[in-house]
Amino acid sequence: MENFTFQNTTRIIFGRGTQKLVGEECCKHAKKVLLHFGGQSIKKSGLYDEVIESLNKAGVEYVELGGVQPNPRLSLVHKGVSICRAEGVELILAVGGGSVIDSAKAIAMGVPYSGDVWDFYTHKATPAKALPVATVLTIPAAGSESSDSSVITNEDGWRKHGYTNGIMTPLFSILNPELAFTLPKYQVAAGATDIMSHLMERYFTNSHPVELTDGLIEATLRNMVRNVPKVLAKMDDYDAWAEVMWSGCVAHNNLLDTGRIGDWASHGIEHELSALYDVAHGAGLAVVFPAWMRHVYKHNLGRFVRFAVEVWGVRNDYWNPEATALAGIQALQDFLVSIGMPATLKQLDIPGDHIDEMAAKATNHGQWKLGNFVKLGKEDIAAILRSAQ
Amino acid sequence: MENFTFQNTTRIIFGRGTQKLVGEECCKHAKKVLLHFGGQSIKKSGLYDEVIESLNKAGVEYVELGGVQPNPRLSLVHKGVSICRAEGVELILAVGGGSVIDSAKAIAMGVPYSGDVWDFYTHKATPAKALPVATVLTIPAAGSESSDSSVITNEDGWRKHGYTNGIMTPLFSILNPELAFTLPKYQVAAGATDIMSHLMERYFTNSHPVELTDGLIEATLRNMVRNVPKVLAKMDDYDAWAEVMWSGCVAHNNLLDTGRIGDWASHGIEHELSALYDVAHGAGLAVVFPAWMRHVYKHNLGRFVRFAVEVWGVRNDYWNPEATALAGIQALQDFLVSIGMPATLKQLDIPGDHIDEMAAKATNHGQWKLGNFVKLGKEDIAAILRSAQ
Repeated sequence: MENFTFQNTTRIIFGRGTQKLVGEECCKHAKKVLLHFGGQSIKKSGLYDEVIESLNKAGVEYVELGGVQPNPRLSLVHKGVSICRAEGVELILAVGGGSVIDSAKAIAMGVPYSGDVWDFYTHKATPAKALPVATVLTIPAAGSESSDSSVITNEDGWRKHGYTNGIMTPLFSILNPELAFTLPKYQVAAGATDIMSHLMERYFTNSHPVELTDGLIEATLRNMVRNVPKVLAKMDDYDAWAEVMWSGCVAHNNLLDTGRIGDWASHGIEHELSALYDVAHGAGLAVVFPAWMRHVYKHNLGRFVRFAVEVWGVRNDYWNPEATALAGIQALQDFLVSIGMPATLKQLDIPGDHIDEMAAKATNHGQWKLGNFVKLGKEDIAAILRSAQ
Repeated sequence: MENFTFQNTTRIIFGRGTQKLVGEECCKHAKKVLLHFGGQSIKKSGLYDEVIESLNKAGVEYVELGGVQPNPRLSLVHKGVSICRAEGVELILAVGGGSVIDSAKAIAMGVPYSGDVWDFYTHKATPAKALPVATVLTIPAAGSESSDSSVITNEDGWRKHGYTNGIMTPLFSILNPELAFTLPKYQVAAGATDIMSHLMERYFTNSHPVELTDGLIEATLRNMVRNVPKVLAKMDDYDAWAEVMWSGCVAHNNLLDTGRIGDWASHGIEHELSALYDVAHGAGLAVVFPAWMRHVYKHNLGRFVRFAVEVWGVRNDYWNPEATALAGIQALQDFLVSIGMPATLKQLDIPGDHIDEMAAKATNHGQWKLGNFVKLGKEDIAAILRSAQ
């Protein structure tokens, strides 16, 4: 086990009806909040009205900033920073999924900083302080509701950068599984794939032994495999949604990282896909992850056999561990296809003509390697993408 | 899944050599600390000198208060409160196991309070603030290093009361598995039993479904079953100790409570044993828990079958679930005996002549019931204790 530090301070308020508590929770920390959200979905679902009512009841003032898009944009972050300064906002309340929360985190760091918040994402500066962020989660996927990171896209050059700093870990997050009942099924499946990918990125490690976290990750993956089909079959299955939503948070709150170094190459490769083509992050991961696995499984056959047996219930072929390992990878891909995710780039309408370009970008034109489990060069990445055509 | 709130703010600093960081970590929060510890073991092991050196190096002043006993005493807490006030202490640094940490938590709450800290333990008052507590853990067992609770014994009437409040959750805890290498084996086994009991108290619940936490608890229990015999066979097996120490913390930091209501009757019964007889808490639990299980397993046969199959690898006898359930309970007891724990009250030198008295005390003379999975009356508790003779 590697030495580690672990801390996650977010207060999770979980369950039916908990969005009604948002006013009284905000009230403990702020007189005025920025209500930050995406498009019309929270208005259609009635969540917007419930949040406003709760804020009003608690006497919390608010200003609004909607319009967060998937791959949240720096320009909107700048707008948020200006509003917060002008209005004396004390807390950013994100109502939505990962994009809204990531945007809120950027605004929170930008308000007390005299320079451009983009400096943090390019590692030119480190934030000394930030406004507190709180969330009402509507999409179980990114895990941003209790994570210490944020990904922002700068429209100037369409650069998509992530930044990690404990200063942006949300103060509290409200997770009501009922709020996910009205999501489009494709988004549910893409979100589930993102959650499972967060678990698998951590699972494939060279740190050994890391038995507790191995077991915890496997248990969380099995929980996803059991419950995602249930929510897709019955979108108001509260119990199954509760399992998926809580798994999504636990998958990415850093507990499952403890003592181990994760891989994260598949995320890196997928970022190139979604930067160049307009695909959902989870859908891109559904194509990339099994292809990555087939490229690297020989590096640690034992771990892939374990993945097959413990997560997917593959019967261990003791005299042919390679067959067992490959059956596990196939079981993952079959599962992702069964919930409506693509298996190939073609199914994402991604042609093969930019593969070398994406592989070059992912390695900064061969200057660095991607991933920790196996260090991938641009030829590896091109081979992985070609195998996924 | 039940609605819940979850928060655990303790920063965990885990791994080899991490005790050397204690000075610089304390320095961020305090100019002067109370160094609180038990007996001579930290002096013999050299830990005391390392802590002092680290504090000196960081320029952190300290005053000392050793002498914490198992079942930490209120009189020493009072002494600690006086010292802290007189010396202007800003942080309580507990170096030791659960008793030292629990005592430190009590002192931390007592310093800013004008009344007697015992008021909190008798629910006569609620602390408005507390000094921060930090720990260097030496015994994986109680989980107090990141928990929100403390148990103190008032010598006036030998009353042993627990109190729970997030205000006493440690600021940071240093967990170095190497510090456990020199523990007596009986203490290791008793500590392991305490950890497993924290997991089992949470596992046996009427909340359903709670699949994620079921899976996480089972994974943590399996990890204990795999690694405790390893540390007992080779007391300097770092990897196995790391698994046990991290499991002990995760077992009791409230994550595994989320969405479910635990039982806690076995802890309640054991408290009566250790109040009347001088037995190690874990050893008492080793006797009580299997006896409790045999008394209640019919309440939810499915859960006990699952416990047998998933935790103990018992082969499921599909046509005789009762036999499967009982085989799981026997497997637990066999394991506890194999690590050196007792199976009967007799082996703890506890005679049968006070069983009715203990059962009466555990239920406040029949005025309340014990436990949540099955509500136990005093006759139930007496029957459980008799069956464990």
